[in-house]
Amino acid sequence: MTTGLVLSLDAMGGDHAPRSVVDGAAIFLKARRRKVRLLFHGDEAVLAPLIARHEGLGAASEIRHTGTEVDMSAKPSEAVRRSRGSSMWNAVHAIKDGEAQVAVSAGNTGALMAISKVILRMKPGVHRPAIAASWPAPTGFSTVLDVGANVDCAPAQLVEFAVLGEAFHRAMHGVARPTVGLLNVGQEELKGSQVIRDADALVKAARLDMDYRGFVEGDDISAGTTNVVVTDGFTGNVALKTAEGTARLVGGWMKEAMTSSLLAKAGAALLSLGALKQLRARMDPRNVNGGVFLGLNGVVVKSHGGTDAAGFATSLRIALEMADSKFLSEIETNLSRLAALDASPGDGGADQAQRETA
Amino acid sequence: MTTGLVLSLDAMGGDHAPRSVVDGAAIFLKARRRKVRLLFHGDEAVLAPLIARHEGLGAASEIRHTGTEVDMSAKPSEAVRRSRGSSMWNAVHAIKDGEAQVAVSAGNTGALMAISKVILRMKPGVHRPAIAASWPAPTGFSTVLDVGANVDCAPAQLVEFAVLGEAFHRAMHGVARPTVGLLNVGQEELKGSQVIRDADALVKAARLDMDYRGFVEGDDISAGTTNVVVTDGFTGNVALKTAEGTARLVGGWMKEAMTSSLLAKAGAALLSLGALKQLRARMDPRNVNGGVFLGLNGVVVKSHGGTDAAGFATSLRIALEMADSKFLSEIETNLSRLAALDASPGDGGADQAQRETA
Repeated sequence: MTTGLVLSLDAMGGDHAPRSVVDGAAIFLKARRRKVRLLFHGDEAVLAPLIARHEGLGAASEIRHTGTEVDMSAKPSEAVRRSRGSSMWNAVHAIKDGEAQVAVSAGNTGALMAISKVILRMKPGVHRPAIAASWPAPTGFSTVLDVGANVDCAPAQLVEFAVLGEAFHRAMHGVARPTVGLLNVGQEELKGSQVIRDADALVKAARLDMDYRGFVEGDDISAGTTNVVVTDGFTGNVALKTAEGTARLVGGWMKEAMTSSLLAKAGAALLSLGALKQLRARMDPRNVNGGVFLGLNGVVVKSHGGTDAAGFATSLRIALEMADSKFLSEIETNLSRLAALDASPGDGGADQAQRETA
Repeated sequence: MTTGLVLSLDAMGGDHAPRSVVDGAAIFLKARRRKVRLLFHGDEAVLAPLIARHEGLGAASEIRHTGTEVDMSAKPSEAVRRSRGSSMWNAVHAIKDGEAQVAVSAGNTGALMAISKVILRMKPGVHRPAIAASWPAPTGFSTVLDVGANVDCAPAQLVEFAVLGEAFHRAMHGVARPTVGLLNVGQEELKGSQVIRDADALVKAARLDMDYRGFVEGDDISAGTTNVVVTDGFTGNVALKTAEGTARLVGGWMKEAMTSSLLAKAGAALLSLGALKQLRARMDPRNVNGGVFLGLNGVVVKSHGGTDAAGFATSLRIALEMADSKFLSEIETNLSRLAALDASPGDGGADQAQRETA
């Protein structure tokens, strides 16, 4: 085990890998002052010349050769059976072996989740892990989860997500007591699906030590109405991608507006001396690229499959922040609170919630 | 029955009604050249002075007095039982009575849907109506449905939405053969929930005469990848509101960027001579405010509950376009195709789809 922080990279995962991974690592390293080491898992013959193109990258890196990789369209169950020894498998396994603190991959999401569960196992009390994303809001970031790991969710799972997400937000964004909302189609209690109403009743009945604010709606995510927004993986994934698509559309309109005439171009030129650059950075989905798997014995960060080098560099930055944070111990504290409630007389939550909503 | 087009307005529905309704009607009328008549349903003592403030509005309007209105938080079932004679009920009933072509309300969505179903009834072949929204895309608009009428949807319902939405898009946006996509979390057939996979199999097995393109993702809505995006009311509502929230956040950032320094202000001033104004209009959610109920014997448009006068004016414009279009006959043609398929030997769709996905 090397000293200092080590990030373990699936160098072959993603549409533009391994180039996006290596170039992203170089961008990431340049912006760091402290010493971080990188493990590249993948085809050495391909990786070595790519790494050699960046000054200083080789010295901070180690290549762990493997000739196999996980197919982007493989089913999760297939991936687990066939992926032993692949770049993704090895990248995650390095955490279990104590060689690295965080694993990062832009490969197949379902496969990465399945492999992570098999290798790292879930923390006691977690039934299925979730993927959390940080989302721009007027004052910092909102945390949204699940954004794609679990398509169908039972009410009890949504309660777990609330517990995991609250710990994640505290660790990642430094808010002492994050507020938590449940994504729904209306704030009134009578609206929404049965699953959401049951989850709402469950959280309330469980009396978790958590600042739960009830239902929020889609526009509350960008408004930052609550720090944490809990939803199932289907809705969360659609919401995240819809927001990205909207930002891209508006960005296109801005570009059009600023090149529509000579006068507009002159105006934009003045603007871009400072403010516009910041605006563009804020609107760039690559600057929030990185979903964090919650509920495992270890930290795994998922980068977009279609990411370029700049987006992958962001995922590495998020991975580093996660490794530095008290995330795993925050999660453990929250989970032990949940476990204490489950074991308490009367078995609290579920039954009571059923009666209350009946 | 008066000659020419008549719009029937629930003057008391919405957070800022009746003022937003009356002022919105005035904005709408000013922008029209042709003759349109308006029926205001609501409290005459309140409405008359509001209408009198706008030159020419009184001459184009008629007040139908009622002292009752539907509560914004009433449950749909309650609303139907208690709302007879309310401003919302009467606004919809005017269509059935042949007094108006379209009804518009910014009131309680669930109540408006329930009342519309009771008064207008569904078209043969439609099990539950859907709400369609027009959504900005690089080349015109996308149609998204359902955006809030049906929280849980069976696969067969999603097929109906595809049929309704395709007809709506052709009538409303003049595309001869709209492309249709099904909202999911991944384009590969193996991803997504069982309901979505079954709906996909059903559409394909039904061999509808429709340009169905399979799965799309959240970012495809703003990209305009398909003209029509089909989803359940929960996901559609979250996506719509998330997009609005994102546009609002980005709008706030733009404002910040343009007032961040004197130089930026100067740049923005040059820009705003033309292009910026158009950009602001494009980003203003009020300019796409109006969900259209599909599947009823008549046209009902739902404006946002929290809309102001400008947003309500947009809903009236959409209502007018709907009244002018061949929308109802397009829907009927599509539904008769669906009915013909249902009645065909072997009963096509569902069974075959089940086998295919098994």
